[in-house]
Amino acid sequence: MAGSTFGKLFRVTTWGESHGTGIGAVVDGCPAGLPLNEEIVQQYLNRRKPGQTKYSTPRKEDDLVQIQSGVFEGKTTGTPISMVVFNQTQRSKDYSEIANYYRPGHADYTFDQKYGFRDYRGGGRSSGRETIGRVAGGAVAEEVLKSLGIEVYAYSQSIAGIAIDDTRAKRENIAKSPLFMPDLEASAQAEDRLAEKMAEQNSAGGIVECVVRGLPAGVGEPVFDKLDALLAQSVMSIGAVKGVEIGDGFGAADSFGSEFNDSFRMDGEKVVKATNHAGGILGGISDGSDVRLRAAIKPTPSIAREQQTVNRDGEDIAIGIRGRHDPIIVPRAVVVVESMVAMTVLDLLLQSMTSQLEGIRRHFDRN
Amino acid sequence: MAGSTFGKLFRVTTWGESHGTGIGAVVDGCPAGLPLNEEIVQQYLNRRKPGQTKYSTPRKEDDLVQIQSGVFEGKTTGTPISMVVFNQTQRSKDYSEIANYYRPGHADYTFDQKYGFRDYRGGGRSSGRETIGRVAGGAVAEEVLKSLGIEVYAYSQSIAGIAIDDTRAKRENIAKSPLFMPDLEASAQAEDRLAEKMAEQNSAGGIVECVVRGLPAGVGEPVFDKLDALLAQSVMSIGAVKGVEIGDGFGAADSFGSEFNDSFRMDGEKVVKATNHAGGILGGISDGSDVRLRAAIKPTPSIAREQQTVNRDGEDIAIGIRGRHDPIIVPRAVVVVESMVAMTVLDLLLQSMTSQLEGIRRHFDRN
Amino acid sequence: MAGSTFGKLFRVTTWGESHGTGIGAVVDGCPAGLPLNEEIVQQYLNRRKPGQTKYSTPRKEDDLVQIQSGVFEGKTTGTPISMVVFNQTQRSKDYSEIANYYRPGHADYTFDQKYGFRDYRGGGRSSGRETIGRVAGGAVAEEVLKSLGIEVYAYSQSIAGIAIDDTRAKRENIAKSPLFMPDLEASAQAEDRLAEKMAEQNSAGGIVECVVRGLPAGVGEPVFDKLDALLAQSVMSIGAVKGVEIGDGFGAADSFGSEFNDSFRMDGEKVVKATNHAGGILGGISDGSDVRLRAAIKPTPSIAREQQTVNRDGEDIAIGIRGRHDPIIVPRAVVVVESMVAMTVLDLLLQSMTSQLEGIRRHFDRN
Amino acid sequence: MAGSTFGKLFRVTTWGESHGTGIGAVVDGCPAGLPLNEEIVQQYLNRRKPGQTKYSTPRKEDDLVQIQSGVFEGKTTGTPISMVVFNQTQRSKDYSEIANYYRPGHADYTFDQKYGFRDYRGGGRSSGRETIGRVAGGAVAEEVLKSLGIEVYAYSQSIAGIAIDDTRAKRENIAKSPLFMPDLEASAQAEDRLAEKMAEQNSAGGIVECVVRGLPAGVGEPVFDKLDALLAQSVMSIGAVKGVEIGDGFGAADSFGSEFNDSFRMDGEKVVKATNHAGGILGGISDGSDVRLRAAIKPTPSIAREQQTVNRDGEDIAIGIRGRHDPIIVPRAVVVVESMVAMTVLDLLLQSMTSQLEGIRRHFDRN
Repeated sequence: MAGSTFGKLFRVTTWGESHGTGIGAVVDGCPAGLPLNEEIVQQYLNRRKPGQTKYSTPRKEDDLVQIQSGVFEGKTTGTPISMVVFNQTQRSKDYSEIANYYRPGHADYTFDQKYGFRDYRGGGRSSGRETIGRVAGGAVAEEVLKSLGIEVYAYSQSIAGIAIDDTRAKRENIAKSPLFMPDLEASAQAEDRLAEKMAEQNSAGGIVECVVRGLPAGVGEPVFDKLDALLAQSVMSIGAVKGVEIGDGFGAADSFGSEFNDSFRMDGEKVVKATNHAGGILGGISDGSDVRLRAAIKPTPSIAREQQTVNRDGEDIAIGIRGRHDPIIVPRAVVVVESMVAMTVLDLLLQSMTSQLEGIRRHFDRN
Repeated sequence: MAGSTFGKLFRVTTWGESHGTGIGAVVDGCPAGLPLNEEIVQQYLNRRKPGQTKYSTPRKEDDLVQIQSGVFEGKTTGTPISMVVFNQTQRSKDYSEIANYYRPGHADYTFDQKYGFRDYRGGGRSSGRETIGRVAGGAVAEEVLKSLGIEVYAYSQSIAGIAIDDTRAKRENIAKSPLFMPDLEASAQAEDRLAEKMAEQNSAGGIVECVVRGLPAGVGEPVFDKLDALLAQSVMSIGAVKGVEIGDGFGAADSFGSEFNDSFRMDGEKVVKATNHAGGILGGISDGSDVRLRAAIKPTPSIAREQQTVNRDGEDIAIGIRGRHDPIIVPRAVVVVESMVAMTVLDLLLQSMTSQLEGIRRHFDRN
Repeated sequence: MAGSTFGKLFRVTTWGESHGTGIGAVVDGCPAGLPLNEEIVQQYLNRRKPGQTKYSTPRKEDDLVQIQSGVFEGKTTGTPISMVVFNQTQRSKDYSEIANYYRPGHADYTFDQKYGFRDYRGGGRSSGRETIGRVAGGAVAEEVLKSLGIEVYAYSQSIAGIAIDDTRAKRENIAKSPLFMPDLEASAQAEDRLAEKMAEQNSAGGIVECVVRGLPAGVGEPVFDKLDALLAQSVMSIGAVKGVEIGDGFGAADSFGSEFNDSFRMDGEKVVKATNHAGGILGGISDGSDVRLRAAIKPTPSIAREQQTVNRDGEDIAIGIRGRHDPIIVPRAVVVVESMVAMTVLDLLLQSMTSQLEGIRRHFDRN
Repeated sequence: MAGSTFGKLFRVTTWGESHGTGIGAVVDGCPAGLPLNEEIVQQYLNRRKPGQTKYSTPRKEDDLVQIQSGVFEGKTTGTPISMVVFNQTQRSKDYSEIANYYRPGHADYTFDQKYGFRDYRGGGRSSGRETIGRVAGGAVAEEVLKSLGIEVYAYSQSIAGIAIDDTRAKRENIAKSPLFMPDLEASAQAEDRLAEKMAEQNSAGGIVECVVRGLPAGVGEPVFDKLDALLAQSVMSIGAVKGVEIGDGFGAADSFGSEFNDSFRMDGEKVVKATNHAGGILGGISDGSDVRLRAAIKPTPSIAREQQTVNRDGEDIAIGIRGRHDPIIVPRAVVVVESMVAMTVLDLLLQSMTSQLEGIRRHFDRN
């Protein structure tokens, strides 16, 4: 499992299980001189914290981050930044039952197949708590991007089949919606739909949309480390994501060249695009317009309803998963998607600094 | 652009421009002892060759591959396998006009922004010919997988808005359809639709579906190098792909836990799943059932119809792209998607050999 | 500084500064099923602990390791293993003076040049305490190797110009010598020499030798990731190391082909070498005999004697470095060299499992 | 053998066997805008060409390089640069005898052990011809460095036990000596010594020294990708190298702190060092003075004298290696060491551009 590191110049390594000592991230390659402290990172982590609304599990987890290295006198030093959120409750007894069977939609079976056994407590490494490391790493990336005038934001585009209406969507609504939907009308409808599903002991899925604004043209490293390719990897690597699309995405498959191509035009001295079906990426390289992507999030796999499965003794059994689980992952996944996008964009932005000899020469001339 | 290498243990590096000397791939990390020769690789390359049907450009390109290293007495030696397809025609004159403007939907603008200038002949490095390197590398990967009993195959799932009907689809039909659709009725309809679009000097998009059969459970390296994550990267890195989904993909976003979760059940001594909404991957690790993914392919950007754009002098202009271009990329992309999937699966399969200490011990005990 | 991760399949990421919260290591890619606990790792760390003899600083640091993830019910789970040693004393006042000048032989100047400023407390990231992370990671690697019958051991080959006599050297003496020299006579002489140097407020250097026994032939990935090449990187990356040699090393430069070439001969059914000038590596690949390397360690840069340097205001000054510092780094570096060698060998050993298609086939047939 | 790629931002992948189609290198990540053509690269390759003096094999090999991609209108485009030297003679008959036994000092045995069989013709991938790829890649790196005012040069420091005298050594002498020694008196003595050894059908070793001049302070990525660490890897990866040392290297082991530490002092407004025992690197980061390293080169393993070995049938045999072989590798290794150093330094120089947030901000502000 040497797959816990993401990035080349800005690299995030995460560790930790749901019921171990804690969840951590080591950010290596953060440029020196960035103002950083625990309060800043905590703002990001609070957005994924459970127990805030009725749509997330009422477990009380403060999830307070500690910065253990790489920051001195309020600024990053260029050395690895270790961050940790210690787990507060490690009650293993709640999970003793699931040790012996495979929950549908979870990674219990595949972990057992891959590693021979697993830390079954709360999903272990495949728990949703793993995303704490992603958000901590993403927080640092996003702070670097902000300091360069690049903004990343995400929201719920669709919940339980209720999609936002772009004409009603406003960015300032995101924080007002308990589901982080920028269209409050859609948000209210989605709340009703979720209430139904909760009553049926069921769960729902949805779509997260993410926008990167202010990214200069020229970011992305063809032919395998294209901007869209690495965004697809990083976002698909989030636990419940089953699909990623850039710009019109699957809509492009049903469209025609005359509709899908974005025309260029001059806006004063600047080259702009009349439309943005491409989602801000051409040939795997940012084109200066907004980068837009969507991630499909599956329904929460843990449901109280009876499900069929097998146990480790090879018997067919029926189970109902006890405990309080989020009926929907999407709202808490919003900041996770944003985090992965921020890491990816920053890493490729840094790489793009060496694309032209002229830019390198100017860098070292000045220094 | 140090992004031309894919993979960790099985690594493919590609090079070459549309109108340079040729297109090549260096496969590093191919296990020794695999029977390989030019005829074998050529079979794969022939599937992406242009000029075979009326839906692909009638340019005559033989695209014959040469193996330059890494094979001795008919078998791979474990050293890097260099393969090249020399370009036969390098007529630059056809492309002189496009040197000065940015074709909508192409990477002309972003390459200029990133690198300061570009090899404008036929799209240079961002030409569709770049995929020759992918297919050559994928051919080697697929041969290794076959020798281990693992099969990868792909086909057109939807063309110009006409999707296959799963009840009619048969794998043996793929080769019979000029569009590589396994449902011949849908294929015929799609041909009609394409004829319309060609008459309108327009182009169309579609969806490629790919299946991996026989992959053991346990492949994929959480949390960033999950099987689905790296499949998303590798497939999204193909020129015209705008979206990737695993299993039900975006359909999962609109479904509910009770529908989407795949139940486990015993089939004799074997654990199987009753359904496969997850597309063969749980927690980023293969579960032993078919891996299924879909890639959304945009319409061919080169169309003869008039389009608006700008030139390098900063003027708004109107253009019509001359020359013969494929009205649809999808059929030729089928083998490219298959190739990227094969590389990705093989690389992670090799990595999975070290997941358990017991497996490592047995390996070295025997040797 | 995205250079804090070493390895491809067995990857170690370290973090931490001398006077921050602690020093840590995240081991990713450790195979599942290895018995591991804090006591095991502590044994390795104790070998680099200061304050044990008069040749190391009398600072009392317990340096107790905590394992925070990746181990469940006494065995590694295959997920990242986070280990941390919390710093006990973080008295910054001792180091306030050095904030303003550049100590000769230290990284103060280069850190300032690279990052614009530095965590000056105790050397920050470039402190010798950084090696705690290496030893923690190396401990895990060495445990895996032991379980496969591969032994790694190191010792002081030369201290302050006194080299061991190979005819007197015995492995069991290593632990008996306060300087970890296998030749107790040389050890006693070196102690005398060190006493002299300490009296002169000076410091001394030396050579660490490391042996890998039981490594199968076939380990190393030409042409850049050869076994000797990655050993050179990993050992040279240790703070005070200025040179690395394999087998006869620099002695080879003065020898002739007829002397240096190791003859092969049959020992029963086994191919062996009559001599081992090559140090167990041919063409960058292990040949089945002992791997032998030596690392040159510079004298401790912190000395009480007056030295010339400059301060941050650009003035020439004279300094004497206060505090208690080891007069010799070599004995405490022994386990650090051993750790880096263990990590390197294990990583390449795992990679070598995929060298032959036949070995891969057998692996998956059995599973 | 996925070890044929070196570097992170400036990456070189090499391929090819002694008696296959040719030897090649793919340079990925070369910044766009560098003037490059075949004549430029050829200058570097000519320095390793055999048959130039009596100390290298009289085989006639023109070794003409072709650039196949990544250069357009005389400048690099930022896309991968594929270079190839086609092998002119592929006479396999000369080598049929060695197919069956293991030459002492060669990689025949280890390749067989690792891969199960080998391309035995002329050493296959482990032939000295493999270094053509290194020099082609290094040529591009060195051109980039030159354009930034950074110079890399190397020479023979010692041959067959005859070392240069630093007081007599002059850089302009290097090209005048058939052995590339900057001290012509030592060069003449070494020639005599070599003549003796040739008469005895023996071979000799030596030391190559390399200097990097003009490198700014701040290059190197602690703690594993330090400048000295990656130099050690890259230089040790060259076929015949058995040791690498930085600055005083192994001499440091016998020196004392008061001698070895380099004092800083002000030279006008500039911080300089009074001496350079450290070889231009402190804490793994360049300090602005000359980087200096030495590589120990073993004697040519192919000698005509009788040697003992075994064959593949497990029999002890005596052999004499026929054909004309260089009695000394050192002179031809000079440009190879220089090439590896250039690649390494450039890759880390590019990485160092992202060390400070301020430098990143200025880069994107200007663009």
